[in-house]
Amino acid sequence: MLTLYSFWRSSASYRVRLALEMKGLNYAYEPVHLTKGGGAQFSAEFRQINPQSRVPALQTETGVLTQSMAILEWLEETYPQPALLPADATGRARVRALCMIMVADVQPLQNVSVSRYLQQELGIDELRVKAFVRHWIECGLAAFEAHLAAGGAGRFCHGDQLSLADTCLVPQCYAARRYGVDPAAYPHLARVEGELQTLEAVRRAAPDRQPDAEG
Amino acid sequence: MLTLYSFWRSSASYRVRLALEMKGLNYAYEPVHLTKGGGAQFSAEFRQINPQSRVPALQTETGVLTQSMAILEWLEETYPQPALLPADATGRARVRALCMIMVADVQPLQNVSVSRYLQQELGIDELRVKAFVRHWIECGLAAFEAHLAAGGAGRFCHGDQLSLADTCLVPQCYAARRYGVDPAAYPHLARVEGELQTLEAVRRAAPDRQPDAEG
Repeated sequence: MLTLYSFWRSSASYRVRLALEMKGLNYAYEPVHLTKGGGAQFSAEFRQINPQSRVPALQTETGVLTQSMAILEWLEETYPQPALLPADATGRARVRALCMIMVADVQPLQNVSVSRYLQQELGIDELRVKAFVRHWIECGLAAFEAHLAAGGAGRFCHGDQLSLADTCLVPQCYAARRYGVDPAAYPHLARVEGELQTLEAVRRAAPDRQPDAEG
Repeated sequence: MLTLYSFWRSSASYRVRLALEMKGLNYAYEPVHLTKGGGAQFSAEFRQINPQSRVPALQTETGVLTQSMAILEWLEETYPQPALLPADATGRARVRALCMIMVADVQPLQNVSVSRYLQQELGIDELRVKAFVRHWIECGLAAFEAHLAAGGAGRFCHGDQLSLADTCLVPQCYAARRYGVDPAAYPHLARVEGELQTLEAVRRAAPDRQPDAEG
């Protein structure tokens, strides 16, 4: 049995929910509220699960897994069908590079802990913190768009088959809108996201469909 | 034939050099100076190689690969011996989680483009920018240390076998020292790094041994 420690609005949690749903896996959902009180991720109880106080964490029969990208790769290895990585090494490298644009180039800079540091330690006002976050989202979406525009995309990010790149694209589009960046400015990426949003698996993973969603 | 586009001091380039050396692979070295002039990564010539204007990029017989983590996985799949991922899925997830602490939680925040934004767009002085970078390095090293302290390390990050986690640890220790964070404050991590630094493959990948190294 799999248990996902997740926060409805967390991009990294959302990636893992998407992979779980695309693979048709059952899992228990354990909410970890990142912003209420000091943040439930810092509780003694959750630190037993993940000492790094981050979501997602995936409880498996063999222990707790952390870091969304490591969890995605583990899901792919443990539940290979339907595959979310292409069969060829070059294709896998392309999909992983797309993932890493979101996972390493954008998301770390929109992380709530970074915004908090900029406000509290550096005295940056909220408007300029949001502009900072928007800047990195725009850089990342532009890089992702350039990859898709260069060829290789089909119905989805990698041809017509779902892939881990799709699990990283959808949450980043969601976060972009929250910060006032419209994915429609990036036509290839926006078209693929539109396709993805028609899938029931993608809808089920959406933030507002989670038990801890707020209005 | 492999050609690595690299900057001597770039952590992400250093990771790939370490994997290439640990696997005993020959490669051509093509320097991309990230800070001289406006940055050679923005030249029209390099944008043909990587439109995202980032190093590393690895030219292979089947095209150019980008994003250090995607390149590391490709090297592992294409040149499986000596293995830099464990044989079991749980072990692989552990190694990848260790990698991602450095690749996604620390390095994006010490990236020169972020420091430049903080200084130029937000008017943060250099001392406070360095304190910002140090903060995320300390968080990341502490998280990595907690993982190693919880068990699973041996001579190296994952038992006694070299792994991708080692290729991510060494460059992060190098960057930590540049920013005035002493890895010795993290005893498990420091011990492993000490072991790694005794290996000729690790020494060959060091920044000051690269053709573009500066004094």
